[in-house]
Amino acid sequence: MTLARAFLLSSVAALTASTAFASDLRDTALEVFAPLPSTVPAVNDNPITPAKIDLGKALFFDPRMSASGVFSCNSCHNLATGGDDNLETSIGHGWQKGPRNAPTVLNSVFNEAQFWDGRAADLAEQAKGPVQAGVEMANTPDNVVATLNSMPQYVEWFHASFPDQADPVSFDNFAKAIEAYEATLTTPAPFDSFLNGDEDALSADQKAGLELFMDKGCAACHNGVNVGGHDYYPFGLIEKPGAEVLPVGDRGRFAVTETADDDYVFRAAPLRNTAITAPYFHSGKVWDLKVAVQIMGESQLGEDLSDSEADQIVAFLGSLTGTIPPVVYPVLPAETAATPRPTGEIK
Amino acid sequence: MTLARAFLLSSVAALTASTAFASDLRDTALEVFAPLPSTVPAVNDNPITPAKIDLGKALFFDPRMSASGVFSCNSCHNLATGGDDNLETSIGHGWQKGPRNAPTVLNSVFNEAQFWDGRAADLAEQAKGPVQAGVEMANTPDNVVATLNSMPQYVEWFHASFPDQADPVSFDNFAKAIEAYEATLTTPAPFDSFLNGDEDALSADQKAGLELFMDKGCAACHNGVNVGGHDYYPFGLIEKPGAEVLPVGDRGRFAVTETADDDYVFRAAPLRNTAITAPYFHSGKVWDLKVAVQIMGESQLGEDLSDSEADQIVAFLGSLTGTIPPVVYPVLPAETAATPRPTGEIK
Repeated sequence: MTLARAFLLSSVAALTASTAFASDLRDTALEVFAPLPSTVPAVNDNPITPAKIDLGKALFFDPRMSASGVFSCNSCHNLATGGDDNLETSIGHGWQKGPRNAPTVLNSVFNEAQFWDGRAADLAEQAKGPVQAGVEMANTPDNVVATLNSMPQYVEWFHASFPDQADPVSFDNFAKAIEAYEATLTTPAPFDSFLNGDEDALSADQKAGLELFMDKGCAACHNGVNVGGHDYYPFGLIEKPGAEVLPVGDRGRFAVTETADDDYVFRAAPLRNTAITAPYFHSGKVWDLKVAVQIMGESQLGEDLSDSEADQIVAFLGSLTGTIPPVVYPVLPAETAATPRPTGEIK
Repeated sequence: MTLARAFLLSSVAALTASTAFASDLRDTALEVFAPLPSTVPAVNDNPITPAKIDLGKALFFDPRMSASGVFSCNSCHNLATGGDDNLETSIGHGWQKGPRNAPTVLNSVFNEAQFWDGRAADLAEQAKGPVQAGVEMANTPDNVVATLNSMPQYVEWFHASFPDQADPVSFDNFAKAIEAYEATLTTPAPFDSFLNGDEDALSADQKAGLELFMDKGCAACHNGVNVGGHDYYPFGLIEKPGAEVLPVGDRGRFAVTETADDDYVFRAAPLRNTAITAPYFHSGKVWDLKVAVQIMGESQLGEDLSDSEADQIVAFLGSLTGTIPPVVYPVLPAETAATPRPTGEIK
């Protein structure tokens, strides 16, 4: 983290200097951000094929992947509502509440790592988490595989998706198929049009907000293709927000690395679609984007943003709301006599 | 009910006689059943327009119609899994269990009335039930309307759907839009192709099953366009099944009419898509369709169906599994500062 912090502080200075003299906002922005690619990004060790995307979509929407038969990936990462669930923290198995706000699945393939603390290296590893978490889907790998094997259509789809494998129905491949589908969930936005050369894609307020976003230092952490999501930073770098927003019991990445430097350190939130994915922060305690921007200004930058500055930054963030590719809702295979029965029992 | 029962007994005899001498299975079937219409059926007092269908689809998939923000209509009537949730009884607000198995929404527009006891005259009336039920979505009409009014896109959609109304955002119109969408959810099946003249649409086993279905008397209750869903009959007409399948505490339509004749009377289940909508009966206690068929034979007809008879009837029922029209998953309006906050609190 020491390196990241050094980058943060030096790059705040650099950005301030560079944009102050920049004649071209777009050129400056291109040094800090990148537009979405025009094709589905490749992911490590998981070739993406149409068959695998289709299988992954079915799995993503299948509530039978949870012990209760109630929750699918889409329950908390709902593609109808910005790829998240718009709750403080998700409600899962047994009506239990999750520990942190569910991040959006949209564009998540571009994050450096997954979860607020980056504990999963990639989307395949991430996909295995909530399925097994007792407060989320409360299932087991064995029961997922038994469920999939009980439906011949699923077995066929796994063979089509992993054609070189003799026994492709596995928990690993379940996760890889979901990763392949999620990699397709990218949402080109007006900001991409701007970066790609359409100067009129942003309004005057949005351009002013973009300039502030870079000048004030927000872009030191929220940069790159996902406007965040690429590195870890302490929440409360300059001033810790109150315990309601930053609960003392959740020490963030410290739980992953167990190094003191990572106390209350979280992955900088990727800001694409942030305008449609309230509430904010890992605690999900802030519902108003402008308030969230002002808290960030104070706690991370020591900046007391004025009303109009915060409004312009919020306007810029609105230009990150993108268009999701049309999703045809899947028709899932029907259960058979061999399908394990759902149970809402709380263990 | 007396009339219905008289019809039941007389028509069993009539069907047995007629099919015994019928030279043409299809002609006989057409006297008892009807194929799905080729267009969206009209519903009472609710003109169906493209705008209203789109609005209804959004509402159908919107989890913010529940108090908790967790459940949408689609949670229990999931279009990915046969229009139901494949649970004994649904799990709802506060992890509470519903009292009866959730029926499929597919083709439900053709049912005589809605719910297992027919307590809602139509789909619009039905749609108002689960939204308010404490064990389901636990919301109130006022909160639904406040939620809808907080999102300008929804307000615009209501105006487009009810163009003659000055203040169209109402709980009544919410229900009407959902009804309009649900009326589009009809699923043409091989059995329709057969009724429409394609003799090869059914296999030999399916044809034998259809003949048995009429000869044995199943079609006395399960007839018409929905192969059921058109009238009410006592469960256990000849012999009451065990309390596990027919719980003594649930007296069915008696709770609606409070007449002794309606004790343990339920709407005959519509059988379209029955093969993909286990578990069975209002109790949801039977997972195997063949077992369900044999229980019906005994309890309703006093028929001890042989293994091969039950297999053939199950084969026929498989010909009722239809094709759902492609559903493009909606992109829902984003919340605003005025949107009521979700709460999982149990009252």
